[in-house]
Amino acid sequence: MSSSNELDKLIRALQIQPGIGQRSATRIAYHLLERRRQDAVELGNILISAMHNIKQCRLCRNYCDNDICNICHNPERYHSRQLCIVESPSDVAAIELSNNYQGLYFVLHGHLSPIDGVGPNELGLPQLDELLSQGQFDELILATNPTIEGDATASFIAALAAKHHIKAISKIASGVPLGGGIDNVDQKTLASSLMNRRPFSA
Amino acid sequence: MSSSNELDKLIRALQIQPGIGQRSATRIAYHLLERRRQDAVELGNILISAMHNIKQCRLCRNYCDNDICNICHNPERYHSRQLCIVESPSDVAAIELSNNYQGLYFVLHGHLSPIDGVGPNELGLPQLDELLSQGQFDELILATNPTIEGDATASFIAALAAKHHIKAISKIASGVPLGGGIDNVDQKTLASSLMNRRPFSA
Repeated sequence: MSSSNELDKLIRALQIQPGIGQRSATRIAYHLLERRRQDAVELGNILISAMHNIKQCRLCRNYCDNDICNICHNPERYHSRQLCIVESPSDVAAIELSNNYQGLYFVLHGHLSPIDGVGPNELGLPQLDELLSQGQFDELILATNPTIEGDATASFIAALAAKHHIKAISKIASGVPLGGGIDNVDQKTLASSLMNRRPFSA
Repeated sequence: MSSSNELDKLIRALQIQPGIGQRSATRIAYHLLERRRQDAVELGNILISAMHNIKQCRLCRNYCDNDICNICHNPERYHSRQLCIVESPSDVAAIELSNNYQGLYFVLHGHLSPIDGVGPNELGLPQLDELLSQGQFDELILATNPTIEGDATASFIAALAAKHHIKAISKIASGVPLGGGIDNVDQKTLASSLMNRRPFSA
């Protein structure tokens, strides 16, 4: 307990942030009080406004400020006729940063996990079904995480897509990361990397 | 840039926290949006309220909600007739946790640093002068950080206290941390630890 109840409350509240424990929260609280009171008030206002105003895009379920996000709003994104399925909005940000994809996205906000009550409805799959039925896409790219749950979710969506005459269904490659040493990669990744080897010519 | 301007603003604002860079801020923003919107709104309100309401104790300059802090308000704290000088409110919290001090504190909120415009007035030394002149204290314990600036500040305050017939002026010990290996301690600490060795009997 510190000298101020408000300070104790602040230190507790800061710990809702992942990776911030008691010690970091204490350091942050003192730093803000000592040096950045005005910025901290602004952070407070931004937090409140963001939590109230950020919603999901009506088409792709990515976070956006309006009804439809910037990506779905961009007519050029429809040319490639590709739809990439990801688990979370941060995956969209990561793929956009890779600068190698010009199509559209669909964000699941999770993966199938019946034990936690996350089924097809929670992942917006009826909405995806509707989207696919409009015949806008030639390829569905499954970019769920390479985990048991992510793979199961990908299989489920592939089955759903098969009904809609999508020409190609693909899954992003797993394997040894570029620039990484083969001896640093875990067994399972390396096994999968060997299993999925590709023809190669110099 | 993400899909939402509000989200970009939030990610930037979160980075006023020390130790939180772009990557952590992004992770925190997505986590709050995905799972803890209500808690994040509450954090926003607590931040705003804390920055407006937390002030400095009129006597010791520690953070508090009222005019005088809990420690200065406690009559038992005056029995020991000791005053401990620290650089920051987090030092008070640390010493309180050590459970080995029952006296009062005075918080400088920094150390002398003429190059940054921090002089005696910024550290509240006129206020300390006034406090010492009331004859309430027999011992002044200097617990500034063992750095060049902290030591210079301690010397300055010792000179100030000498004017006020304080019986004892002491400085907390520096040396090898308890439970630490001597071979892990830096040269300067070890040199100081040897220089300040004490008589010992079994």
